[in-house]
Amino acid sequence: MGRTILVLNGPNLNLLGEREPEIYGHDTLADVEALCRAAAEPAGYAIDFRQTNAEHEMVDWIQAGRKGLAGIVINPAAFTYAAYPVLDAIKLADCPVMEVHISNICRREAEWRSHSIMTQVCTGIISGLGIHGYELAVRHVIWLRSRGH
Amino acid sequence: MGRTILVLNGPNLNLLGEREPEIYGHDTLADVEALCRAAAEPAGYAIDFRQTNAEHEMVDWIQAGRKGLAGIVINPAAFTYAAYPVLDAIKLADCPVMEVHISNICRREAEWRSHSIMTQVCTGIISGLGIHGYELAVRHVIWLRSRGH
Amino acid sequence: MGRTILVLNGPNLNLLGEREPEIYGHDTLADVEALCRAAAEPAGYAIDFRQTNAEHEMVDWIQAGRKGLAGIVINPAAFTYAAYPVLDAIKLADCPVMEVHISNICRREAEWRSHSIMTQVCTGIISGLGIHGYELAVRHVIWLRSRGH
Amino acid sequence: MGRTILVLNGPNLNLLGEREPEIYGHDTLADVEALCRAAAEPAGYAIDFRQTNAEHEMVDWIQAGRKGLAGIVINPAAFTYAAYPVLDAIKLADCPVMEVHISNICRREAEWRSHSIMTQVCTGIISGLGIHGYELAVRHVIWLRSRGH
Amino acid sequence: MGRTILVLNGPNLNLLGEREPEIYGHDTLADVEALCRAAAEPAGYAIDFRQTNAEHEMVDWIQAGRKGLAGIVINPAAFTYAAYPVLDAIKLADCPVMEVHISNICRREAEWRSHSIMTQVCTGIISGLGIHGYELAVRHVIWLRSRGH
Amino acid sequence: MGRTILVLNGPNLNLLGEREPEIYGHDTLADVEALCRAAAEPAGYAIDFRQTNAEHEMVDWIQAGRKGLAGIVINPAAFTYAAYPVLDAIKLADCPVMEVHISNICRREAEWRSHSIMTQVCTGIISGLGIHGYELAVRHVIWLRSRGH
Amino acid sequence: MGRTILVLNGPNLNLLGEREPEIYGHDTLADVEALCRAAAEPAGYAIDFRQTNAEHEMVDWIQAGRKGLAGIVINPAAFTYAAYPVLDAIKLADCPVMEVHISNICRREAEWRSHSIMTQVCTGIISGLGIHGYELAVRHVIWLRSRGH
Amino acid sequence: MGRTILVLNGPNLNLLGEREPEIYGHDTLADVEALCRAAAEPAGYAIDFRQTNAEHEMVDWIQAGRKGLAGIVINPAAFTYAAYPVLDAIKLADCPVMEVHISNICRREAEWRSHSIMTQVCTGIISGLGIHGYELAVRHVIWLRSRGH
Amino acid sequence: MGRTILVLNGPNLNLLGEREPEIYGHDTLADVEALCRAAAEPAGYAIDFRQTNAEHEMVDWIQAGRKGLAGIVINPAAFTYAAYPVLDAIKLADCPVMEVHISNICRREAEWRSHSIMTQVCTGIISGLGIHGYELAVRHVIWLRSRGH
Amino acid sequence: MGRTILVLNGPNLNLLGEREPEIYGHDTLADVEALCRAAAEPAGYAIDFRQTNAEHEMVDWIQAGRKGLAGIVINPAAFTYAAYPVLDAIKLADCPVMEVHISNICRREAEWRSHSIMTQVCTGIISGLGIHGYELAVRHVIWLRSRGH
Amino acid sequence: MGRTILVLNGPNLNLLGEREPEIYGHDTLADVEALCRAAAEPAGYAIDFRQTNAEHEMVDWIQAGRKGLAGIVINPAAFTYAAYPVLDAIKLADCPVMEVHISNICRREAEWRSHSIMTQVCTGIISGLGIHGYELAVRHVIWLRSRGH
Amino acid sequence: MGRTILVLNGPNLNLLGEREPEIYGHDTLADVEALCRAAAEPAGYAIDFRQTNAEHEMVDWIQAGRKGLAGIVINPAAFTYAAYPVLDAIKLADCPVMEVHISNICRREAEWRSHSIMTQVCTGIISGLGIHGYELAVRHVIWLRSRGH
Repeated sequence: MGRTILVLNGPNLNLLGEREPEIYGHDTLADVEALCRAAAEPAGYAIDFRQTNAEHEMVDWIQAGRKGLAGIVINPAAFTYAAYPVLDAIKLADCPVMEVHISNICRREAEWRSHSIMTQVCTGIISGLGIHGYELAVRHVIWLRSRGH
Repeated sequence: MGRTILVLNGPNLNLLGEREPEIYGHDTLADVEALCRAAAEPAGYAIDFRQTNAEHEMVDWIQAGRKGLAGIVINPAAFTYAAYPVLDAIKLADCPVMEVHISNICRREAEWRSHSIMTQVCTGIISGLGIHGYELAVRHVIWLRSRGH
Repeated sequence: MGRTILVLNGPNLNLLGEREPEIYGHDTLADVEALCRAAAEPAGYAIDFRQTNAEHEMVDWIQAGRKGLAGIVINPAAFTYAAYPVLDAIKLADCPVMEVHISNICRREAEWRSHSIMTQVCTGIISGLGIHGYELAVRHVIWLRSRGH
Repeated sequence: MGRTILVLNGPNLNLLGEREPEIYGHDTLADVEALCRAAAEPAGYAIDFRQTNAEHEMVDWIQAGRKGLAGIVINPAAFTYAAYPVLDAIKLADCPVMEVHISNICRREAEWRSHSIMTQVCTGIISGLGIHGYELAVRHVIWLRSRGH
Repeated sequence: MGRTILVLNGPNLNLLGEREPEIYGHDTLADVEALCRAAAEPAGYAIDFRQTNAEHEMVDWIQAGRKGLAGIVINPAAFTYAAYPVLDAIKLADCPVMEVHISNICRREAEWRSHSIMTQVCTGIISGLGIHGYELAVRHVIWLRSRGH
Repeated sequence: MGRTILVLNGPNLNLLGEREPEIYGHDTLADVEALCRAAAEPAGYAIDFRQTNAEHEMVDWIQAGRKGLAGIVINPAAFTYAAYPVLDAIKLADCPVMEVHISNICRREAEWRSHSIMTQVCTGIISGLGIHGYELAVRHVIWLRSRGH
Repeated sequence: MGRTILVLNGPNLNLLGEREPEIYGHDTLADVEALCRAAAEPAGYAIDFRQTNAEHEMVDWIQAGRKGLAGIVINPAAFTYAAYPVLDAIKLADCPVMEVHISNICRREAEWRSHSIMTQVCTGIISGLGIHGYELAVRHVIWLRSRGH
Repeated sequence: MGRTILVLNGPNLNLLGEREPEIYGHDTLADVEALCRAAAEPAGYAIDFRQTNAEHEMVDWIQAGRKGLAGIVINPAAFTYAAYPVLDAIKLADCPVMEVHISNICRREAEWRSHSIMTQVCTGIISGLGIHGYELAVRHVIWLRSRGH
Repeated sequence: MGRTILVLNGPNLNLLGEREPEIYGHDTLADVEALCRAAAEPAGYAIDFRQTNAEHEMVDWIQAGRKGLAGIVINPAAFTYAAYPVLDAIKLADCPVMEVHISNICRREAEWRSHSIMTQVCTGIISGLGIHGYELAVRHVIWLRSRGH
Repeated sequence: MGRTILVLNGPNLNLLGEREPEIYGHDTLADVEALCRAAAEPAGYAIDFRQTNAEHEMVDWIQAGRKGLAGIVINPAAFTYAAYPVLDAIKLADCPVMEVHISNICRREAEWRSHSIMTQVCTGIISGLGIHGYELAVRHVIWLRSRGH
Repeated sequence: MGRTILVLNGPNLNLLGEREPEIYGHDTLADVEALCRAAAEPAGYAIDFRQTNAEHEMVDWIQAGRKGLAGIVINPAAFTYAAYPVLDAIKLADCPVMEVHISNICRREAEWRSHSIMTQVCTGIISGLGIHGYELAVRHVIWLRSRGH
Repeated sequence: MGRTILVLNGPNLNLLGEREPEIYGHDTLADVEALCRAAAEPAGYAIDFRQTNAEHEMVDWIQAGRKGLAGIVINPAAFTYAAYPVLDAIKLADCPVMEVHISNICRREAEWRSHSIMTQVCTGIISGLGIHGYELAVRHVIWLRSRGH
């Protein structure tokens, strides 16, 4: 069982803090990464933190990490709705996969934003807890691992 | 701003640990309560932990706590799908409301189990993280309050 | 033919005036009751005015009043959408039943709020006329009775 | 603020009393007009009562009255379902607009009769109270005006 | 029982023979009228043949003829899909009403062309028989009348 | 071009006159056959009149008659809704095919009765004209043939 | 394995015999109880017969009886459509659960009455056999038990 | 009133006991017939027990028995979903018709298996009670007849 | 090929500039006409600019112009959703037909506003470009004509 | 394990080569049979080649062959859409069942032609490869058998 | 405010002129670019013209240009239907975004081609005006800018 | 006409044999390639075998091969559901395109897996025949070419 948690961020999250701050807040992705590290490192876990706008890169990263990770935390962002290759890649992973959304996707402006195709293949989902959701997802991976799951 | 977190449990959760353990695990509601207290009390918050099979009792409790609480954590259980009075009561609360589901409701056996009417009026949702989801929801309330939300 | 009009109020209406005043206004349920009495008593009718958060209590009250009333005025509030036992109880009543909504349910924020399951078993519906809708419903019962319906 | 209430009647209502009397009753449109005048005139309001089978005439009348009226009462009849020009005209009016249906449109024989496209742009709706619904709509306009709405 | 059959033609049929002849053929509305007269007059019936692009005119004509006609034959053309005032007017008629479409509306290019809202209030429908459908509709009215319907 | 018109009747029509006479009337299938012959024979056409409860027999008959007939008149009865083999067989026929329903299928008690899968492959449809519809369908075949279609 | 059969009756069934007798018949709930006892007692089984208008009471009763009963017979009445807490409680029972409806819910006046959410978690359903359906459900429990199920 | 109960079995039931025994059990159709006779004969009723894979044969049998039977018990099997000719034949019968399914069709693997087109024309339905459902259906016919229905 | 461009405006556009200026802007229909003329006249084209609230008038104008125009620019306004007679008239035109909407109909407040029935029979659509859309539509007609389309 | 491959052809395929050759080609069913034999016989397998217009005959043949065949190749033709008895019969077979369609059913003219109810119970599907699809299906059965499936 | 207009072209547009010329015409993307430059440069605007088959490249380009551009013109081509990352990137842009389609997407062969997910986040849409639509979109950006939008 | 067959594999197929072997088997993509070569080379055809996780790479490859290939065999894997750019690229190819799925996509666990958007633009589909489906697709391309298609 690995000691690395892969944290994946989907398209446009590189501009977090700039885009629709009334929905996503003013924190940047660097803030998110710091939050994850602060949760993982004291417990002896490393964070591998990445962002991409490219679906195939997300797939490649999940494939590469499909064995030996402690867990995956993924904010699929706009991949949430139709990125079936990512969904199939997640099914390859032998570790828990936590889906995180910064905003509550069920309270967004459009109907289609409320349905994630990813949830059906993830262990669980945290949605609407701001960037704190990442921290809690990391903590949940560690909690699972500490119990031998 | 209050220092009490109201943790509400919907119908049939009084039998947690007995019902479909392959889905919900073997922990009981007493275990859940202990987990919540262990997360809240060191941070100076009290837990008010309740369960009911009666929709109107859930409504009464939310009404009574609509002012002055630090937050509400609610596992609506079977109220998730059609308990509109609970939904309207949640809208009355002036504190954050966290929706928690022990299992990932998007991976359950029936289509209708994947859609919660509550999410649209809650701050956020944690689903599929087992009873650990309660602890994380409590931690999120404290985190929000520590930041002045 | 009775001289009492039963006025029934559904869940969370006990907090009328406090909840979403931009939609429901600042009047309280006591104001509504006064309005109903002012309409009924000069015409020789009594008002039996009640509120409950419990679906079964609403059912019990309708059952108890199913014979001998002049009419029923009901604001089902959140019972509007899925309280089938209330719907079946209304079918038992031998008097006119007026459905009242304070706000125009077709102009609310969510699609599901625009459809009432109760309307199909009620004599008529008044929606969006504020608390004045109660008064008019009471007047309509009296009007019907004065014409021998 | 004007002292005239425009009462508009949609297609085929010129034959009220003759068409399906088991649904609409035996009263004629002249009876309806008398009812409206009896409610308005003692309170110092005039009634401008009209009927048309032509959608564009209905639009023209609403446009002409969009400023300076005390209110509009409209029974759209068969315009209820697809007369979008009337709907857009109603949005131009600066006074309250009451939608009235003689029968309870949710209890009619066909599914499509239960949905009015007009309700989303009207202040409120009264449906199923017979021709008395007109009188109550007139009274509601006066009530609103007497309160400075 | 009257001896006149009212034949009504909806919008754009004044250009019959010019519009999409591969669907509607090259015959003109005058040809249709001649066909109807040839069927009716030998049997002692008169034809009152009309066309309009205006929905309210169609309504007025049906209202005017609602009593005392032998029958109505109507090709609603584009009124087929949303002209609810015409539908309600048809319900006023005390004679058989035959719906006729020159082309088979179920074989047209668009899905929405296959559903007529008129059929539910007409005695019967003839669709796809070209302009001969008018003649047969006239003959059916006479047949019904000859049997005392 | 043939001189025979094949008239096909679907399941349970052998009991016509006995089943739901308030919908289908009291005439029997023998009456229908006589009506068809009376229309065809003076014009020099023969009628081949058949009824079956078996879908494959209907298919066989249409296949056998796919070449050389003057036309086909078919009342598919309960084959109307799901008998795709009959639909495909009709496409094989090189003559006009008239679909006939005794009652107006759009006015029947159940929604599903209003949609015929056959209409999309037939030349035209006559529905709701009682058994007279058969006669008119036969006349239409002759009319088409007399014009060289 | 227990010797008691719990027979549960949902809302408004306390007025059986009075409500819509053309649908439900004139027998009362006491008649139903007698019928059940007459079927069970000669075979050595006891009947525990209850009715409630309150969903939570139904849940409590099923929870209390989830172990050790011979079987449950439930007429959910208006709980049939949206009482998810009852559905979840039924899943807790370790005995056969028979769903009974007095009328054939597929022949009722409204579309929504034809779909029961309970059937998916019950052993079987008997619908439309009048109050005799209760007796047969009791007999089926005994039949199952006599075969060691 | 006849003394014969016609028990009809749809396609593939001739192989009952062989096909998916985890769903349908190991009993054969001969066992079912014996069960029916054992229920009927002591009460003075005869059983006419049949199976067919051919829809038209099922139609013919129902037509032949439409008058003079005590009742019909039908397990439509795969005719449940689209055999409209059988549905129309059932409407011809002047006796009670019981629909029986061995398995609970609402718990089957596919959505489409949960909806029977037959139920709307049958007196009642028994589903999920195994082959015992046949016996109970027979008993219900006798019960009805003994009460003069 | 004609040198006149017919610019048609649907219901309520006579009040452009007054109605919902936050959506439609403050320009009036006279401003729109000036814009069209400024685009057309230098290129040697005339503008025939009209507005109507009456569907049949719109149909009449399109019929009259169906031959010999350079093009048609139409803002159907509330005719966008159900004015099938206008749709059929457009099919008669032998010139390009440009559909224009001032606001982006896909960003409006209601779902139904996003679907135009006209687009399927128009050459193209310009939506959301304010009144400048009219100018561009005129320019496109001229561009097409200058290329011999 | 048997050495015979049963090749089944649904309704109207007896006329293959004659019906819609632009879709199905000019080859006849005899050509198809020859193709199948040429693929099977060199490998030591026999072909049992049949066609029927009767659903029950298709069911009988599948039942008869449910044990001991090498495989079944079925072109259900018009049975593709609603022949549930055939679907249930296929589930009885203990050998691989290949579904074949000559044309690509997803490219046909009507939406309903793109969905086969059979695919869910077949091993695999070949669609759109012309009559060559039969040969490949036969080869696949042999390939499976040669690998001991 | 910038002086550069970014013109973006989605997948397969690099082959414009070759693919389905009956729909898209024979002009190439170089022709489109020339058209855009001819419209922009005389007005003092530059064109940055690009094409990509890669969704992430489209996202990167929009992100890079999100500040300081005069406007964006985008023909999303096959990104129109499910490229949510592009949609979210467009929301980041602080300039007008014009959606352009060469063909009228509402007249294409398949239903799914008529709905663009992009329109809801674009300023406006031009569809069906051929490559001239690009020119007009560029002109509209300049028009907006010249008015200070 | 070319002699090369391009075999394309979509996302995650690089891990074939590892992912869900109970569905996809234990063979690797190298095994598939060998199978294709063994089918093509003896007939004088070359195989160009590729896999990618990137949609745009798939598009580029199809574009590059759109002219001069003997055929394309494509297993779109997760591109099956929403990769519209691939769909549009396929339309550019001047050779037959065979869609292959290893598993029967109509028997997979989720509803959405049963519908391929690609099939409407491919020549044919082979689904559920394991990796043998690739071989048969290759053989079909050769078969078509040998017949001059």
